[in-house]
Amino acid sequence: MALSFQQNFKLGVLGGGQLGRMLIQSGIDFNIPFSILDPDEHAPCATLAEFHHGKLTDYDTVMKFGNACDVITIEIENVNTSALKALAQQGKKVYPQPEVIELIQDKRTQKAFYQNNGIPTAEFILVQNAAEVKANASFLPAVNKLGKEGYDGRGVQILRSEKDLDNAFDAPGLLEKLIDFDKEISVIVARNEAGEIKTFPVVEMVFHPVHNLVEYLFAPADLPESVIKEADAIAKTIITKLDMVGLLAVEMFVTKDGKVLVNEIAPRPHNSGHQTIEANITSQYEQHLRAILNLPLGDTTLVLPSAMVNLLGEADYSGLAKYEGFHEVAKLPGVHVHLYGKRITKPFRKMGHVTIVDKDIARLKKTADFVKQTLKVIA
Amino acid sequence: MALSFQQNFKLGVLGGGQLGRMLIQSGIDFNIPFSILDPDEHAPCATLAEFHHGKLTDYDTVMKFGNACDVITIEIENVNTSALKALAQQGKKVYPQPEVIELIQDKRTQKAFYQNNGIPTAEFILVQNAAEVKANASFLPAVNKLGKEGYDGRGVQILRSEKDLDNAFDAPGLLEKLIDFDKEISVIVARNEAGEIKTFPVVEMVFHPVHNLVEYLFAPADLPESVIKEADAIAKTIITKLDMVGLLAVEMFVTKDGKVLVNEIAPRPHNSGHQTIEANITSQYEQHLRAILNLPLGDTTLVLPSAMVNLLGEADYSGLAKYEGFHEVAKLPGVHVHLYGKRITKPFRKMGHVTIVDKDIARLKKTADFVKQTLKVIA
Repeated sequence: MALSFQQNFKLGVLGGGQLGRMLIQSGIDFNIPFSILDPDEHAPCATLAEFHHGKLTDYDTVMKFGNACDVITIEIENVNTSALKALAQQGKKVYPQPEVIELIQDKRTQKAFYQNNGIPTAEFILVQNAAEVKANASFLPAVNKLGKEGYDGRGVQILRSEKDLDNAFDAPGLLEKLIDFDKEISVIVARNEAGEIKTFPVVEMVFHPVHNLVEYLFAPADLPESVIKEADAIAKTIITKLDMVGLLAVEMFVTKDGKVLVNEIAPRPHNSGHQTIEANITSQYEQHLRAILNLPLGDTTLVLPSAMVNLLGEADYSGLAKYEGFHEVAKLPGVHVHLYGKRITKPFRKMGHVTIVDKDIARLKKTADFVKQTLKVIA
Repeated sequence: MALSFQQNFKLGVLGGGQLGRMLIQSGIDFNIPFSILDPDEHAPCATLAEFHHGKLTDYDTVMKFGNACDVITIEIENVNTSALKALAQQGKKVYPQPEVIELIQDKRTQKAFYQNNGIPTAEFILVQNAAEVKANASFLPAVNKLGKEGYDGRGVQILRSEKDLDNAFDAPGLLEKLIDFDKEISVIVARNEAGEIKTFPVVEMVFHPVHNLVEYLFAPADLPESVIKEADAIAKTIITKLDMVGLLAVEMFVTKDGKVLVNEIAPRPHNSGHQTIEANITSQYEQHLRAILNLPLGDTTLVLPSAMVNLLGEADYSGLAKYEGFHEVAKLPGVHVHLYGKRITKPFRKMGHVTIVDKDIARLKKTADFVKQTLKVIA
């Protein structure tokens, strides 16, 4: 079969951030022509592909953009799904499907989906406003989540006791039992149009205690084989039940008694899959492209143990970004720095990430620590 | 130390072919802004960076292009070195240095350089024209090479006996004793401004018997340790004697009695280093960037055995390229297809390459064979 996406083809991506940037970087191998839509004219993708400046949540903007593309995908969930549905109805391929994006956009429908499909997740109560949160004081300690537009730790807070209730979000959301977890893990799973499904090996996350962003990530996860198998099976079940085409990141808790509970899902390349660029035979970015272009899925085998460190803007700096410690870090064996092309740094802005590969796991973790302490984004 | 190439910086590349394309792809990681000059407005780099359409051999074009850049490099040797020298004199960083490019542009000065520096190479005679070739009939069997503008097998021919003398090139060139070699190998070596030097592991090449293009490449080379050490040492000696900054590919013969002789060198990323993208910790492209931007050189360790197959346009097809067998090849574990973004295929045009990684070397070679037989560029 000859490749159909080689000539007179355009892959549209809603969102032009770092995930889109690494998608373009991967797509160069298959000679895929990209078209990007993003509200920021200086977005990380702006100089690497055909670029359109516009709002992802605006119906007309998304319609006009999508109409000029052959296949449309996303690198961020907060997009106008009505436009995507209309585009799909007109015969455009939209992957992941708009219905899946819509379901995932709202953490309330996400939770209902788990419940309706027998997928293990933390016990929860849906709430409409702050008053309803306060009415459920007996459910504490709990995590209070906004239904919509939470991202990178925004719209998520822990309510430990009644005195925290004053902070309750006053918008539709949910209260979720605070899980006394042992570990947070992630499985990235892909499915193509033909229904082929492949998972990446389980990875283990360490979160920053205050900012609620992934700080470290290790692969392979250090867990009993039974837990690994359970997590892998859950990811496959979810993508199957969603009948989804594309890449899905499934974040899960492993409880102290070894149960696996789904936390959240994201239907796109994910922060917890960056290290696949260096550490696995196929990267999550290439896998996403394979899935949505109906190519055979790639081999996800882990080649070397890896760690991934997010590179966030330092707390006290805003302005033109500078990278302190770059040389010190670049000279270490197995260290791969990825900068996202953002001119301006802000406190805790995701400016890049660093992947470390090393067959010696103890040394790997030591290098990850060194990278974290040494490489700083200042202004 | 803060990175200086992050803001208000431009890396100029003379040439916008596949080597430039993979250089840009790698440079995305370090957020390097590229500017490309190429005579073909549809060059593989044209859509991936700031692109200038113009002749690489024209003094004024190269001067104008280079004046707008901070560091200037090449991805092809056939460029105007007078302009590069003038740019260097004005304080621009030009790596590799124009003098090195000039020396390598002419196979006659290349050979003289080996001779003057005690670097082992096949015995040779410099010739001015066809008459001088014919006058050296007693030197046959020999390889007749044009001094300048030979590339990918052009400007190189074997003269086995007197009846071949009618084909002798009628331009300045050389006659080189035909080496009865056991293997052709390559070592890629890098050197930065600070003088740090690192080599990639030796790779082994198999050439197409007619078209004189690399057809297969295997790493690691299956050779005695003493030969490996000798080849590695020769590459380091050459880059040191050239006082060169950048990446240098050193192609060598291993004779049947185990001697290593230098064949040719190229001061840039090279066909024999494509597989480093997947198979080594650092790719040749990142290493080139590290060398010319005076970053510490990267770890060149081979992670997995690899094979590289060039993807050439089929003999009987010209026109809009189609890729037959793409799906069959893409579904094999460890197979990485790289297409170069060339719309038009022509007989034997380099349209892409495929890297295969596999810890099992026998299976690796079998997969390489399958890829070669299955993936075809037609029109």
